[in-house]
Amino acid sequence: MNKLVGACMFGQSGGPTSVINSSAAGVFIEAMKHDCITEIYGAAHGIRGILEEEFYDIRKEDTKELMLLKNTPSSALGSVRYKLKAANVDETDYKRLLEVFKKYNIRYFFYNGGNDSMDTCNKVSKYLQKSGYECRVMGVPKTIDNDLDVTDHCPGYGSAAKYVSTTMMELKLDANVYDTPMITVVEIMGRHAGWLTAASALASYKGLGPDLIYLPEVAFDTDKFIKDVDKVMKSNGGKCMVAVSEGISDADGTLIAEKLGTNLAKDSFGHAQLGGVGAMLSNMCKDKFGCKTRAIEFSLMQRCGAHLASKTDVEEAFKAGATAVKYAVRGTTDKMVYFKREMKNGKYSCKMGVMSVAKAANTEKKVPMEWIVNDGTMLSKEYVDYAMPLIQGDCKAPLEDGLPRFARLNKVLAGKK
Amino acid sequence: MNKLVGACMFGQSGGPTSVINSSAAGVFIEAMKHDCITEIYGAAHGIRGILEEEFYDIRKEDTKELMLLKNTPSSALGSVRYKLKAANVDETDYKRLLEVFKKYNIRYFFYNGGNDSMDTCNKVSKYLQKSGYECRVMGVPKTIDNDLDVTDHCPGYGSAAKYVSTTMMELKLDANVYDTPMITVVEIMGRHAGWLTAASALASYKGLGPDLIYLPEVAFDTDKFIKDVDKVMKSNGGKCMVAVSEGISDADGTLIAEKLGTNLAKDSFGHAQLGGVGAMLSNMCKDKFGCKTRAIEFSLMQRCGAHLASKTDVEEAFKAGATAVKYAVRGTTDKMVYFKREMKNGKYSCKMGVMSVAKAANTEKKVPMEWIVNDGTMLSKEYVDYAMPLIQGDCKAPLEDGLPRFARLNKVLAGKK
Repeated sequence: MNKLVGACMFGQSGGPTSVINSSAAGVFIEAMKHDCITEIYGAAHGIRGILEEEFYDIRKEDTKELMLLKNTPSSALGSVRYKLKAANVDETDYKRLLEVFKKYNIRYFFYNGGNDSMDTCNKVSKYLQKSGYECRVMGVPKTIDNDLDVTDHCPGYGSAAKYVSTTMMELKLDANVYDTPMITVVEIMGRHAGWLTAASALASYKGLGPDLIYLPEVAFDTDKFIKDVDKVMKSNGGKCMVAVSEGISDADGTLIAEKLGTNLAKDSFGHAQLGGVGAMLSNMCKDKFGCKTRAIEFSLMQRCGAHLASKTDVEEAFKAGATAVKYAVRGTTDKMVYFKREMKNGKYSCKMGVMSVAKAANTEKKVPMEWIVNDGTMLSKEYVDYAMPLIQGDCKAPLEDGLPRFARLNKVLAGKK
Repeated sequence: MNKLVGACMFGQSGGPTSVINSSAAGVFIEAMKHDCITEIYGAAHGIRGILEEEFYDIRKEDTKELMLLKNTPSSALGSVRYKLKAANVDETDYKRLLEVFKKYNIRYFFYNGGNDSMDTCNKVSKYLQKSGYECRVMGVPKTIDNDLDVTDHCPGYGSAAKYVSTTMMELKLDANVYDTPMITVVEIMGRHAGWLTAASALASYKGLGPDLIYLPEVAFDTDKFIKDVDKVMKSNGGKCMVAVSEGISDADGTLIAEKLGTNLAKDSFGHAQLGGVGAMLSNMCKDKFGCKTRAIEFSLMQRCGAHLASKTDVEEAFKAGATAVKYAVRGTTDKMVYFKREMKNGKYSCKMGVMSVAKAANTEKKVPMEWIVNDGTMLSKEYVDYAMPLIQGDCKAPLEDGLPRFARLNKVLAGKK
């Protein structure tokens, strides 16, 4: 084992989740156990914080607060959506990164995010390798979209899925309360992969979920949609609940939101009142069925609803962070932590390994077509068996005055060198 | 004490809440303890179920399921929005009600709802009295709007307030995650009274809430709004979070949603893309500040989010139902249960009493103007002290496969007589 002594840098990137801070806690707490890690830095707003030499000295944080990160949603260090250009197109950022890495003797770099963030992680890793600067680079997966390849699932998905399925059950009870016809359309995040929308099927399997579920994996046809709703309305006493992915597109790949939105006039401020594809489909139903309809968007709540986090997800996210540090200290670099499911006697467990970060960066895992059933309107039992273990257990921040006590970091900037 | 022997009828009315079924459980479980109550009926869809002789035989339910009602959101028996005409205008419904009451020997009538439902309850009570038919009529309060008079607060409010404040804290963490300017506008229920929107101030007092809160109690001025936001943006690093009541109106009493919506063109289905006042204000901000803005609606989730119910609220709602039965059995009629707050050594407790149901029916309690501070944009410490005890404690349905196990009623219709 090649013992590498130096500072470690951790950054958060992409859309926040309920458990991305849990991985941060995992990285920080594990890093503190290793003498070879001299300083522990947390980049403010991901890669941008490194470029701008703005990062926090994590050793100045109270360990109790770092542990509270486990149940604090969103990205405590700040996130970023910054796409590094390819090094052979524009080397500026890479030169600057190398400069900063050298100046602070950063020998461990952990980057937490989804596909785009793994792309950043991969590019940085390859550049540092090429430059001959020894640094162990590890990706830590995160995304409510659950669309990273190879890994069985992604930290963040279980909690978002738990939010979606639980809330859907509650909404179903609410939407059915009057004895008049009613169509409810719930819009759920997911531009290309329908994993999160699929989670509403967990509620359906409990008898309290949507009657129809539409994912981006299946070409959406508005005429068929109306027929599907009509069928449900007739067989179901005039009630229909629909879950729809924000990213549903037609056979040509055009977003339905875009397609239906083209004719939209502007409001008094000159902005098209888009309001999402859910609102549009809800209006379409109002038009066709003449009954009460309602559009609901889970909006940011589905990704930051940490009060409904899955314990399985929180623990796995924490462990993913810690595992990245362990591997790096042992000499691994240029990898991403991934999850491997093991089922023994029907009992789920999650093993962690490492895979090529390059592979994680450039692939996108969709919901398997064979799991999408009922003419593209429901998920199969195979999906339910896949997702159910991921939403198990409750795990949330302690309460203070009946409200969550989230982590409060000191955020002491590391002294500039 | 005049012992009155006969059946009891319970109905749910108006918009559902997280705890309206908790009151149902309170009524049913208490009713079973009294020999003078022969049958226990639950009206399907409130007053309409009585008119149509459609009610469930609650004695055919499993007690375990009735107890699960405590943590099951929405109205398990079905709700209704049905306004009884005054008896001197049209007696038809009243005659029919009397007929049904006589046929089934209904001597106890419990009605659970807000102002409108108490109006129904009051009218039925007065008509039965006038007809000389002995029946004990009791209102059980319920409304997330918290706008019933005399009572310190209403069952349903605490849980909705807990949903609003907790979710607001999570959203605040999420909304601030990027290092770019951002305005978030969250729309909260409440047409005339701002109680529920006010609950977002609980998050502000924890340092993670909206910067600006607008209630229907204060005339809304869009120019002032833009100035308020501008001030926050400048002092707060380009971030602003706004909580706004759906019912905000201008000085003339015109709804802002209506005012801003008038110029809205129709979408491709011929419907104005209203999307609520939050979306309109968000667009207005986008126009004025040119930065990213986001509108979020808590929609039905704020009233059915039983997974975030307040234990205090759940227990009080249950007790309110039980108290109504106890009073009725002892001879009380024509009243509504109300809550009286007692503070001893800083410790909150809630006593229950009865008040005129007529009074509850026709009054509307608003947020006191002296609790609205910062030039109409924030709630005072007095409000926080008022609301904080109401959101205390967690209390939710048991989990089954990681999802809530809500009550499953048999709903056996009572045999028609």
